[in-house]
Amino acid sequence: MADEMPLITRAVWWSDGEVCWINTKELPFREVVRCTNDPVELAKAIVGMEIRGAPAIGVAAALGVAAYSKSLADSGVEISEFRDKVLDVIEVLWKTRPTAYNLFWALSKVKKTLLNSYTMDVVRVANEIINEALSILKEDLEANIRMGIHGASLINYGSTILTHCNAGALATAGYGTVGAVVRIAWRQGKITKLITTETRPLLQGARLNVWEYSKEGIPVTLITDNMVGYVMKRNLVDAVFVGADRITREGFVINKVGTYMIALAAKRHGIPFYVVAPTSTIDLSSSINEVVIEERDPDEVRKVMNELLITLPDVPVMNPAFDVTDPDLVTCIVTEKGILSPPFEESLRKVSVAKV
Amino acid sequence: MADEMPLITRAVWWSDGEVCWINTKELPFREVVRCTNDPVELAKAIVGMEIRGAPAIGVAAALGVAAYSKSLADSGVEISEFRDKVLDVIEVLWKTRPTAYNLFWALSKVKKTLLNSYTMDVVRVANEIINEALSILKEDLEANIRMGIHGASLINYGSTILTHCNAGALATAGYGTVGAVVRIAWRQGKITKLITTETRPLLQGARLNVWEYSKEGIPVTLITDNMVGYVMKRNLVDAVFVGADRITREGFVINKVGTYMIALAAKRHGIPFYVVAPTSTIDLSSSINEVVIEERDPDEVRKVMNELLITLPDVPVMNPAFDVTDPDLVTCIVTEKGILSPPFEESLRKVSVAKV
Repeated sequence: MADEMPLITRAVWWSDGEVCWINTKELPFREVVRCTNDPVELAKAIVGMEIRGAPAIGVAAALGVAAYSKSLADSGVEISEFRDKVLDVIEVLWKTRPTAYNLFWALSKVKKTLLNSYTMDVVRVANEIINEALSILKEDLEANIRMGIHGASLINYGSTILTHCNAGALATAGYGTVGAVVRIAWRQGKITKLITTETRPLLQGARLNVWEYSKEGIPVTLITDNMVGYVMKRNLVDAVFVGADRITREGFVINKVGTYMIALAAKRHGIPFYVVAPTSTIDLSSSINEVVIEERDPDEVRKVMNELLITLPDVPVMNPAFDVTDPDLVTCIVTEKGILSPPFEESLRKVSVAKV
Repeated sequence: MADEMPLITRAVWWSDGEVCWINTKELPFREVVRCTNDPVELAKAIVGMEIRGAPAIGVAAALGVAAYSKSLADSGVEISEFRDKVLDVIEVLWKTRPTAYNLFWALSKVKKTLLNSYTMDVVRVANEIINEALSILKEDLEANIRMGIHGASLINYGSTILTHCNAGALATAGYGTVGAVVRIAWRQGKITKLITTETRPLLQGARLNVWEYSKEGIPVTLITDNMVGYVMKRNLVDAVFVGADRITREGFVINKVGTYMIALAAKRHGIPFYVVAPTSTIDLSSSINEVVIEERDPDEVRKVMNELLITLPDVPVMNPAFDVTDPDLVTCIVTEKGILSPPFEESLRKVSVAKV
């Protein structure tokens, strides 16, 4: 299956010793590619959501450490300075987003590589880090294909799928989590249509889903976030597929704000609600009460696309980036290791590999 | 109570033989007042949502017929021509919006006045129509105050109220339906804060609620539509108050799209969900299956404030203006005649006066 799947859209990749990404903030109107080996520039791109989506953030952070390690090694620093500087950079990248678990998972992996390679010379350590980052990228692509195959098996022929935010190719190294499910089910002739919410405040649905799916010929219809109940009541939705930024050991799903309300509407209408995420998203270490929900700049709500003011400029605003969907609202969790069913506390423990 | 309530914000009023309104499309940035006795101009303002909110539409339509009748009478036409032309104009206004029941209720009242006054001379008939329209306007203001008193009695001290779309002063002749509840409860010291959704696609929450409530010193916090579940889960909401464009005999509430999802979230969290609407909103004649949900211009979704394109210009869109909230999700319906409890099929029949 993976061989047959063309990799048309990528969010982050490795090129010539640098981490590269599409600046998703400019989509769907301009396709701007950026590359760097400067971790501060990369951190800004993650904070500013040029790169977004938990798996893409994880891959980008790992590649960013790798690019920085290479540039350090090329400059000929000593191993102790190399180690201190790379650890500092891991720290900087660690603090870019507080909720996406894959970020911590990927950075922990490269950090472990660094610490395990302590006795080697700088060039060899740098190469180990690059190899680790590239294997995180490769694993992401492979995991997505496997999630896609598992997820597509849940879809009946002639289905309309509803999704929220972008868990597509632009949220991963490629294909996407939900994106892989949609692409594979589409190639299998199972999907008639994809409905995406626009996903305020940053409009990932309107900007990114519409762009990446229509680019590949998959029919996509756009609605505002508050129309989900309406379309479900009119029997226009057969299944919901969303991504996750973190899944706790109890099976709580932390994902883009609005996911919870969609899950409630799906429950009301008996529509299956599927979460698609790699096992690197599963956080067995913390309970739901310990998860920090990122509160972002109020101007993301007061303005649209950082440009058009839609309200009075000083109105108080709440702007949580994520919300929490309770386990009882989730039909299944689709991972690269298979489809998990309730009780999730058990099924998650069996597949989880993520250690931070 | 009515005497004490200052009428600070009005959506529609009568001035010097004309119907006047605030062009709500220009809010919150510009306060543009328009007046006319040309029913075609008024119809355009209703279709274009310069005037919106079911009660405001009803009052405006009645005043529009009155203004036109006056101009006809002033021009000295014969009674038969007068009658034909006024009936034509009622027809034009009738077709402006398909869902708001108050529109049909108000136009039916002026039509009845016209038909009952058939034997009178033109000036007298015009005066009867003007009087009828002015009494519709006056009744709206009085009904709002009564709804406000009833609704405020449901609110505990220290409450945060969540609302959706604008059912405030700008949706009525003045005070609002939900707006009257909020204003009266605020003056009683019961309300700590109002949370409003932004209400995509036309952003009545971000533009109109923020403007009219902060103008009167009522603290208002803005969220996107998809954050309602988040704020409820964080126990930040004590009660939901929304308006209605139509209430069917079974108790189905047709209101701004998104209302249904808020009701589902409120149910999940045991938060009371109140609908505030005058009895002229109650439609005993049709069942829920007969109600037409208005589908509006796709560019309202593709663009923000008719200005900023947020997606690819040709993406397919759904744009229902309203959705349907089931009776089991509604705690009470607050009318000017009192608070209605389930089963609504019974309680609605007792208070309904609206005949179309």
